[in-house]
Amino acid sequence: MTRASVVGVGMTTFGVHDQPLPELFGQAALDAIDDAGVMPGDIDSFYFGNAMGGQTENDTHLAPTLATEIGLAGIEAQRFEDACATSANAFKNAVEAVDAGIHDTVLVGGVERCTPETGKGTGAMTEIFASASHRQYEQPTGLTFPGVFALLTKRHMHDYGTTERQLAHVAVKNHYNGTNNPRAHFGTETTVEAVLDSPIVADPFHLMDCCPFSDGAAAVIVTSDDVADSYDEPVDVTGVGQATGRVPLGLKSDIHATQPARDATATAYEQADTTAEAVDFAEVHDCFTGAEILASEAIGFFEDGDGGPAAEAGRTAADGDRPINPSGGLKAKGHPIGATGVSQIVELTEQLRGDAGARQLDDPTRGLAHNLGGDAATTVISVLEVRG
Amino acid sequence: MTRASVVGVGMTTFGVHDQPLPELFGQAALDAIDDAGVMPGDIDSFYFGNAMGGQTENDTHLAPTLATEIGLAGIEAQRFEDACATSANAFKNAVEAVDAGIHDTVLVGGVERCTPETGKGTGAMTEIFASASHRQYEQPTGLTFPGVFALLTKRHMHDYGTTERQLAHVAVKNHYNGTNNPRAHFGTETTVEAVLDSPIVADPFHLMDCCPFSDGAAAVIVTSDDVADSYDEPVDVTGVGQATGRVPLGLKSDIHATQPARDATATAYEQADTTAEAVDFAEVHDCFTGAEILASEAIGFFEDGDGGPAAEAGRTAADGDRPINPSGGLKAKGHPIGATGVSQIVELTEQLRGDAGARQLDDPTRGLAHNLGGDAATTVISVLEVRG
Repeated sequence: MTRASVVGVGMTTFGVHDQPLPELFGQAALDAIDDAGVMPGDIDSFYFGNAMGGQTENDTHLAPTLATEIGLAGIEAQRFEDACATSANAFKNAVEAVDAGIHDTVLVGGVERCTPETGKGTGAMTEIFASASHRQYEQPTGLTFPGVFALLTKRHMHDYGTTERQLAHVAVKNHYNGTNNPRAHFGTETTVEAVLDSPIVADPFHLMDCCPFSDGAAAVIVTSDDVADSYDEPVDVTGVGQATGRVPLGLKSDIHATQPARDATATAYEQADTTAEAVDFAEVHDCFTGAEILASEAIGFFEDGDGGPAAEAGRTAADGDRPINPSGGLKAKGHPIGATGVSQIVELTEQLRGDAGARQLDDPTRGLAHNLGGDAATTVISVLEVRG
Repeated sequence: MTRASVVGVGMTTFGVHDQPLPELFGQAALDAIDDAGVMPGDIDSFYFGNAMGGQTENDTHLAPTLATEIGLAGIEAQRFEDACATSANAFKNAVEAVDAGIHDTVLVGGVERCTPETGKGTGAMTEIFASASHRQYEQPTGLTFPGVFALLTKRHMHDYGTTERQLAHVAVKNHYNGTNNPRAHFGTETTVEAVLDSPIVADPFHLMDCCPFSDGAAAVIVTSDDVADSYDEPVDVTGVGQATGRVPLGLKSDIHATQPARDATATAYEQADTTAEAVDFAEVHDCFTGAEILASEAIGFFEDGDGGPAAEAGRTAADGDRPINPSGGLKAKGHPIGATGVSQIVELTEQLRGDAGARQLDDPTRGLAHNLGGDAATTVISVLEVRG
């Protein structure tokens, strides 16, 4: 059943940007408004995501500032922060609101500036990112996010025999996809050997297993099912699940299961009355290559333990039977934290419209977005479909 | 019409706390759960507010951490940040969600640690607070929040002849109310002379015109109207309005009008089918004494320009005809940013239940909460009533 529809999308390139935050966000938001053809006065509310503007550039209370920037001063607005799942959570709350009749038409968007070029250096940014892990139990140990996902992935390797080579195939595939995405941070191919030869960041991850810090913004216009037909190219949101999990890592019973992703997926599939088999492709949160393997299993694309061999066999390539991250994913498209969740919705929408250019998949009808925060303790799963 | 009901409340003392953030929040949240008598398994979602944990102690992605702390691991959860209106925005979104049938029972709460004793010093905290003003146009000028509200208040003085002595009466009244509130940061009386003799912070504000930085937490259980009767002491939420305004100050046409408060009030009164005259008391956002005067006009308790004389005449005292901030307000109760909005809902609930102890008003049936963020560019107005 249709819960809401996406009727307009906008997105900056991901990479290094020197614009101030409001201008960067405005670029994506105004593109989404223009793409929808919506009159700004018809937008009822603004669901906004930014993860770390307070920490990176002492910039908070951004929702009214950005609303003013794009001509929506006075609008009801709220900022969400749920680490890397920030703007997917904004999207989930927006979908619920239009589905419930609270609003007819809303703007959902996210923005982040986190490249060393626009603010802090890599060391300081790594410490800021670490704020999404447990302040009392994890941060004092020196654990940062490459280490968090290394722990999850190491356990997966231990239990299922997943290999570094299989992980490298994720990076190679996503970099290749990125060459077809003009908005990607990295538009260059890589090889399994180059990944395995790159420096170790946190065993088993080499540098090329890690996504970059990016600057960027993404926005979508979400409407109720009732009014969607008055727009040119609506894409339907049929399910949105969200769940959290135990924090810190030491409390989780099975760390590589990423249980919140499984719980959120079950909710989203139930709402959409669908199954993994009927989903044609997915954008998943590949902050590290291992995270994509875990996600590919959590969303039911593969049985537990089969994610690594599937990646190596090319099944998740754009021309494979289970395409994952045709956009290039966080790994190649880039990862401006608070924009990532909505950028996945942009990709799903463009693929389902048949507007994805060189990276267009073969006539997909249903796609899934998987956006996680922290050690996967917040995960949002969205299912979008060609309007029936 | 009842949109939702508050069936349980919890709140720490406001002041200096040395507990870690999760423990501090847990104290309020578990008190709210206990007060409601709700089974934790019956709580569907967690609407959480924290304004500056990332900046003060590198602690973000708090919703799942706090949910784990209080035995709700796995629950759907989202963090809001809208400067000082943070947890009122969480409350507003929660009320909408239960009103629309998205959830039956939710936990809404906020927490902050911002005393110099628990983290940064006063200078650093003042800079962090300033993150809620415009990053490009205001922060570089050295404008911090005493200055922001001084500008609003100076204009009000210019237009209406409001005096420093009238402002001082707000401080005296709220300090007196604070002596009747065992959870207040300041439990001591003051005098008009003491306020006027205290050092100037930002003309026209003396030190005693300013609220403190506080640590603290507040939480409420919100249910749908349908299930409220199964609880002991439901208080009904009949209206919640939210609006934003132009940022920065230079774009506002009439800075002391605090237009978002007027817009949000109109929405809340319309939903509640009520008027200012029928509201028995209010908790308003008196971050500075001048802000209370402006708020008392924006919510319609007094005509524009009458707020100052009304304060001086004692009309807003607990035994006046228009009681404002019987809790002591931010000025005396304290201001742990992300907890303030929900703490107002706690006060309204206790007053409407007749549970407010020494500060109990004379049989009120309808109260209003006014919580603003930034330069008032985000304002949330909530109307609560004795269950009909």
